[in-house]
Amino acid sequence: MATVKLWTDEEVSANPRVKVVFDDIRTTRKSDFVNNFWRALANQPEILERTWSNIKQVMVEPGSLDPLTKELIYIAVSTINSCSYCIHSHTAAARAKGLTDQQHAELLAVVGMAAETNALANAFQIPVDPEFTVE
Amino acid sequence: MATVKLWTDEEVSANPRVKVVFDDIRTTRKSDFVNNFWRALANQPEILERTWSNIKQVMVEPGSLDPLTKELIYIAVSTINSCSYCIHSHTAAARAKGLTDQQHAELLAVVGMAAETNALANAFQIPVDPEFTVE
Amino acid sequence: MATVKLWTDEEVSANPRVKVVFDDIRTTRKSDFVNNFWRALANQPEILERTWSNIKQVMVEPGSLDPLTKELIYIAVSTINSCSYCIHSHTAAARAKGLTDQQHAELLAVVGMAAETNALANAFQIPVDPEFTVE
Amino acid sequence: MATVKLWTDEEVSANPRVKVVFDDIRTTRKSDFVNNFWRALANQPEILERTWSNIKQVMVEPGSLDPLTKELIYIAVSTINSCSYCIHSHTAAARAKGLTDQQHAELLAVVGMAAETNALANAFQIPVDPEFTVE
Amino acid sequence: MATVKLWTDEEVSANPRVKVVFDDIRTTRKSDFVNNFWRALANQPEILERTWSNIKQVMVEPGSLDPLTKELIYIAVSTINSCSYCIHSHTAAARAKGLTDQQHAELLAVVGMAAETNALANAFQIPVDPEFTVE
Amino acid sequence: MATVKLWTDEEVSANPRVKVVFDDIRTTRKSDFVNNFWRALANQPEILERTWSNIKQVMVEPGSLDPLTKELIYIAVSTINSCSYCIHSHTAAARAKGLTDQQHAELLAVVGMAAETNALANAFQIPVDPEFTVE
Repeated sequence: MATVKLWTDEEVSANPRVKVVFDDIRTTRKSDFVNNFWRALANQPEILERTWSNIKQVMVEPGSLDPLTKELIYIAVSTINSCSYCIHSHTAAARAKGLTDQQHAELLAVVGMAAETNALANAFQIPVDPEFTVE
Repeated sequence: MATVKLWTDEEVSANPRVKVVFDDIRTTRKSDFVNNFWRALANQPEILERTWSNIKQVMVEPGSLDPLTKELIYIAVSTINSCSYCIHSHTAAARAKGLTDQQHAELLAVVGMAAETNALANAFQIPVDPEFTVE
Repeated sequence: MATVKLWTDEEVSANPRVKVVFDDIRTTRKSDFVNNFWRALANQPEILERTWSNIKQVMVEPGSLDPLTKELIYIAVSTINSCSYCIHSHTAAARAKGLTDQQHAELLAVVGMAAETNALANAFQIPVDPEFTVE
Repeated sequence: MATVKLWTDEEVSANPRVKVVFDDIRTTRKSDFVNNFWRALANQPEILERTWSNIKQVMVEPGSLDPLTKELIYIAVSTINSCSYCIHSHTAAARAKGLTDQQHAELLAVVGMAAETNALANAFQIPVDPEFTVE
Repeated sequence: MATVKLWTDEEVSANPRVKVVFDDIRTTRKSDFVNNFWRALANQPEILERTWSNIKQVMVEPGSLDPLTKELIYIAVSTINSCSYCIHSHTAAARAKGLTDQQHAELLAVVGMAAETNALANAFQIPVDPEFTVE
Repeated sequence: MATVKLWTDEEVSANPRVKVVFDDIRTTRKSDFVNNFWRALANQPEILERTWSNIKQVMVEPGSLDPLTKELIYIAVSTINSCSYCIHSHTAAARAKGLTDQQHAELLAVVGMAAETNALANAFQIPVDPEFTVE
């Protein structure tokens, strides 16, 4: 179904450069499960390394936004971009990080309202209020 | 610049149906400032009423997501939808609710990473891992 | 501001291939005004010819959808694609074809609702009901 | 497959708040069939109530745009947003409201032309003609 | 699964207007295989003729961009538009024109980076540097 | 106009972490001009460093796609994402790398056709031909 091959654990083990990344994914996430996104990226070690390194910096390292909030933002972006795989994987990730049904409902309510008012504002071509600009 | 007229306070005052909504916006937000989005919607009292009622329910009433988190989600959606007005108004709203520069930086990092990996996952047409689906 | 030069009437007149298209636009629309979209396309006579020929076939020739309905659809697409120029030009075109404020309000209400429910349906990754499929 | 549970009729009947909405959907549409979109929203009674109430106001109540035209606009938006479920459900809804093959063909021709010229206008970053602006 | 019927070769043969286009597709591509996109468009001979004629002019006729580069651009657009069918068909077409795994990897790296920086630039609402504008 | 401050050269010089990146941009590009995108990112040194490092790897380091082709892909993505700033900056970058008017015309023709056929394929919800899938 995919446009590229999805690497099995056996194929990963046979490629040292890919194996290093998969090992780090497993260690970082404290889980043996590595999802298909990384098995597709394995075809392209350079993007695999860069993407995992960036994801670790952005999504895993502690910062001023908590991990669940980051997943909510990820789901919002993936929904608007109509990325079926990403909606599934990040909804599952958010649940694993404690997303309740009530929070999920409120997330979708905000995403839906934002999509609606984005359409209205775009259709009106509203000029930005001076109050909103920096300086 | 806009595709519709933006209502002045004088025009609003002359229209009882519109005035009720504007009064409620001012009361709810505890501010006299009403931004251009509502001045554009004033042309269409029915959508004005419905949109404000929905925004109040979704964005103002207390729930399980805090107000700042809701603004972060709104900015994420508006960015992907390339809604210039909405990006400006909700970035300003988030700042008014306490968004720090560090949080803004992390928000954009997540939005950017999500946009990038959405593109990769779409280009790969990755099948959803069975682990991610709800029964 | 544009990424390409916008052709003046003088420049158009000096280029026979471009002039033929501009003459046909003026004749077809029964107006001397030619908007900037065509002045940008003039840089690329082949696309200019093809685009105008397609627009004439799709938007001008009589069919089973009336001209105003076609403009409503055009505005809907342009709004979701966040094409500022297209929103302006087709809202103006729709008004010239009789769009009332009430119809404009209803158009935007439908576009807004569709954008909202699209986001919800995408976020839910709802399977298509068998009742909706052909055959 | 979905990211949330789809409610069966039995589950709906056991939840008075959800049941009221489903009953109204059936009465309004004069059909026993309730499609999966509402069965997904049933997880979130507040959004369910708000969305159905809005859909009724926008899509069902008589206005200046006829019901089929509204479905055409809905299909146009859903197509650009790449919402597979919505394209299916609203194409089926449009057919139920009398959409002919010829009208469907013309709808798609307009949506396609709009998508193409949106891309061209965006790529050119064409300044809006003063003739198109309000006031 | 589709919203329209997909025409079989038998049905194509029985319709002279459609048959002419299918014959030209086969001759131009030097292959008997005609993919489902055209079998869907067959329902609408006018769009079928226009689309094939445009595709031939844009994608087949020799120009200043080589055929593989055009396919890369097509994949990039289809990925951002989340068009599952188009991603599949044009990735296959690019491979048939010689796309290597290394080129595919670099294409996706550029598409991903562009999607990420588009989001950042939109979120910042960066003013265009005067150095970038034409005149 | 922007949602964040754009850093002046003076402010950059006063911040060693930001200065290192700006110096590298100037050295790598062999030009003293640093465009506003980086002046916005300067507010967020961590994203600044990561984004520049990624851009260098993806866009500057030699690979199997030539630099102009990468810019064409970047313009295509930016156009579909309606990123005004990015369309301007990458059209200028492409011109600096030798983009001819004829190539620009062909690029836009492909982007436009892709956007149109994406819409058609999405509207049809065409099933992927087995011939297009890997394995």
